[in-house]
Amino acid sequence: MAEDKLPTRTEDFAEWYNQLVLKADLADYAPVRGCMVVKPYGWALWENITSWLDREFKATGHVNAAFPTLIPMSFFEKEKEHVEGFAPELAVVTHGGGEELEEPLAVRPTSETIIGHMYAKWVKSWRDLPILIVQWGSVLRWELRTKLFLRTTEFYWHEGHTAHAGADEAREEMYRILDIYERFCYEEAAIPVIKGTKSETERFAGAQVTTSIEAMMWDKRALQSGTSHYFGQNFAKAFEIQYLDSSNKLQFCETTSWAISSRIIGAMIMVHSDDQGLVLPPRLAPVQVVIVPIFKKDDEKVKVMEVADRVFKELKATGIRIKMDDRENVSSGFKFNDWEMRGIPVRVEIGPKDVEKGSVALARRDRPGKEGKTFVPQAGLDSAVSGLLTEIQASLLKRATEYRDANIHDPKDYEELKKVVQDGWAFSYWCESRECETKVKEEAKATTRNIPFNQPDTEGTCIVCGKPSKRKVYFARAY
Amino acid sequence: MAEDKLPTRTEDFAEWYNQLVLKADLADYAPVRGCMVVKPYGWALWENITSWLDREFKATGHVNAAFPTLIPMSFFEKEKEHVEGFAPELAVVTHGGGEELEEPLAVRPTSETIIGHMYAKWVKSWRDLPILIVQWGSVLRWELRTKLFLRTTEFYWHEGHTAHAGADEAREEMYRILDIYERFCYEEAAIPVIKGTKSETERFAGAQVTTSIEAMMWDKRALQSGTSHYFGQNFAKAFEIQYLDSSNKLQFCETTSWAISSRIIGAMIMVHSDDQGLVLPPRLAPVQVVIVPIFKKDDEKVKVMEVADRVFKELKATGIRIKMDDRENVSSGFKFNDWEMRGIPVRVEIGPKDVEKGSVALARRDRPGKEGKTFVPQAGLDSAVSGLLTEIQASLLKRATEYRDANIHDPKDYEELKKVVQDGWAFSYWCESRECETKVKEEAKATTRNIPFNQPDTEGTCIVCGKPSKRKVYFARAY
Repeated sequence: MAEDKLPTRTEDFAEWYNQLVLKADLADYAPVRGCMVVKPYGWALWENITSWLDREFKATGHVNAAFPTLIPMSFFEKEKEHVEGFAPELAVVTHGGGEELEEPLAVRPTSETIIGHMYAKWVKSWRDLPILIVQWGSVLRWELRTKLFLRTTEFYWHEGHTAHAGADEAREEMYRILDIYERFCYEEAAIPVIKGTKSETERFAGAQVTTSIEAMMWDKRALQSGTSHYFGQNFAKAFEIQYLDSSNKLQFCETTSWAISSRIIGAMIMVHSDDQGLVLPPRLAPVQVVIVPIFKKDDEKVKVMEVADRVFKELKATGIRIKMDDRENVSSGFKFNDWEMRGIPVRVEIGPKDVEKGSVALARRDRPGKEGKTFVPQAGLDSAVSGLLTEIQASLLKRATEYRDANIHDPKDYEELKKVVQDGWAFSYWCESRECETKVKEEAKATTRNIPFNQPDTEGTCIVCGKPSKRKVYFARAY
Repeated sequence: MAEDKLPTRTEDFAEWYNQLVLKADLADYAPVRGCMVVKPYGWALWENITSWLDREFKATGHVNAAFPTLIPMSFFEKEKEHVEGFAPELAVVTHGGGEELEEPLAVRPTSETIIGHMYAKWVKSWRDLPILIVQWGSVLRWELRTKLFLRTTEFYWHEGHTAHAGADEAREEMYRILDIYERFCYEEAAIPVIKGTKSETERFAGAQVTTSIEAMMWDKRALQSGTSHYFGQNFAKAFEIQYLDSSNKLQFCETTSWAISSRIIGAMIMVHSDDQGLVLPPRLAPVQVVIVPIFKKDDEKVKVMEVADRVFKELKATGIRIKMDDRENVSSGFKFNDWEMRGIPVRVEIGPKDVEKGSVALARRDRPGKEGKTFVPQAGLDSAVSGLLTEIQASLLKRATEYRDANIHDPKDYEELKKVVQDGWAFSYWCESRECETKVKEEAKATTRNIPFNQPDTEGTCIVCGKPSKRKVYFARAY
């Protein structure tokens, strides 16, 4: 498949994306409406994402556990906003073991309800708190318009659910997690994200505060890339999660929940990739380096493969994730295209001339063509390649940051706002009323992304209605 | 909870098991019929199991991927034996997004069908083979009689699904995996298992050959602890998984599937644990060592904690999974019982006298009481503890092996067979007819476990009907 060209991003961004996901071998359409199969290459990428996050969660005192996939329908009724938010999206099991069930069960769309039920059972005293549990798995939401990784009926994620003895501690937890998410995006995914608070209408169903990280895609639309919610006592009251405090008084817990899902893979594609295919940040790439030995005659093969095998072993020994492409049924050109489509950060080319000269060619994926190609000595190749991987990682983040900053506008009035959000973001004062938010949504198809924690010192006036406003918000069209 | 006593194994083995799972904090009953919540301690144990297996699968060329949780009902119809085996156990989604579905979807009970469907799409040529994919996750089977870890409606597992160009290669894969399972049980779980072939009636629905590893529990019942199946071309024909061979001829693939599930945790409990609670093999224990500092007065506390903190750091630095129990609201006796219930392999006790003498007390969980307690110098404690962990691991396997071997009988006739399987296993010649198998099942409640690969050189006569028989089989009552 990899020999086929993608449409360019400029020609048809949506189609470029869909074809790239398939041709880079990340995922495939499943024979179930709106679902995907995450193929081994895509899953290896997801494993690199999850193992970083899992390590960070554990380092901050969190533990993993597993709650049932099926949730009694009545559980959703217990929190009014939650049921309104999720009831329309549920997949419902009505039959089990050949018989109709007395109470239908929902395939979990998220697990606040069933985890809340268990926490109520487990928590007795302040000594049992905090509970800091993460569940890794998948959830189902009956989406009407689906797109691989970005919006699928079933998707993969972790969901953190914590219960605390006090409001401050719960809010701190929400922010602590958002910081981990931010660090993941900057350090690992090379995606510059903006942390902030969601508006009331954009909040998670049942939350008192929803915070998010927002990223700008290549088409300048926004993608909510992770969320962290503070519920106050909403779920604790709905599920009776109570504890005896140190003076033996019964209190309700304060809870949080938070998630990053497999849509972060979609974000990585839409931020970094190009018309040749996938571009992956080296820290997350399942394969960081591919070696392509180049030869025609048999005597060339012997010499080239000797060097290629040695280089392979040397680089592998330094912990680099590396692959040897010694296929003989396809041309070198085919291999180059193939690995470019799959986004391998560095390609090492070794031909008969390189053997003679004691050198190899290094081609960096983030700068295709001659510009990104250098010839380096075989001696000391391990540090040259490690250095290049670090440079690529930094370069991807820099490029994405510059791109984002160049496309965030400060429109002078509402008319200009409506224009700029067609091809960028607006960062504007907003009175935080639902009316003004709805107006922008209806007239410009842009939503409030978040109210960033970092705000200018000054105050201003709402870009929509002109009323005095304390904080600026990002408006953007979003996925 | 840990201060409560368990019933003894002799008094009530089933109740001992149920209470142990709850009190050792491994799992809890879920508010969904037959489902469990795997609590953080149980999940940490499962993570140690899965990470060993995952490493071995990857080392033998397997990759992970994810297929949908929901499977169209029509897929099950495609393989006749498969639908007969699984249709009665399905949980069925009939509604999604508020509407009745045109075709109901089953929550996966196992994924041969949907994975077969995808393989048919992916495989074109012999160059695409073999496909060696593993999926980690959970599946649902509507079980009527459930028991935590051993038999729950939803359970956790990996399922490997491979497709090959030839029958020999597929059979080799089946055996390669069974060897990995065997090695896992011996080296990690300290459970001596017997590898062999299942009888026709005990085969997986749709398989041509099912191989298993079988373990003996403390109550001498057998537990099938892992299975590896060879399907021949059954699923390839049902789902049209075909490839062009090197002479451009269309051929059907040969496929396998295999699994170990979270019931292996049940096996570890029923093989190793005792009337005080859980006993875990050190290699899989989430916490291998717990330090209990013992003091009464404040000046004692300072001195004891100084040593305890130093010992903690030293042991942790060597990679030992360690926990400090410095709770001040409970007694040392409570702590001892608590950690014994949770099966921590080694307890390090440090009191004021130990501080004076420069020693600590080591208590090994597999030998409770004075017998398992030694006093060792603080100097060189890291190697003493590492050595003890290794010794405990070996000792658990030895004890379980001796116990198993002492309880496998060679009955002289059918009457004796019926007796011995009430409190042990029988290893007897069997003619491999369904009639004799059914007779034993009906009259002695024992099933054939497997026909082991290692057979005596001689032949014999069927223990049931007296006909000449080539191979011996294990008969046992089983979970």
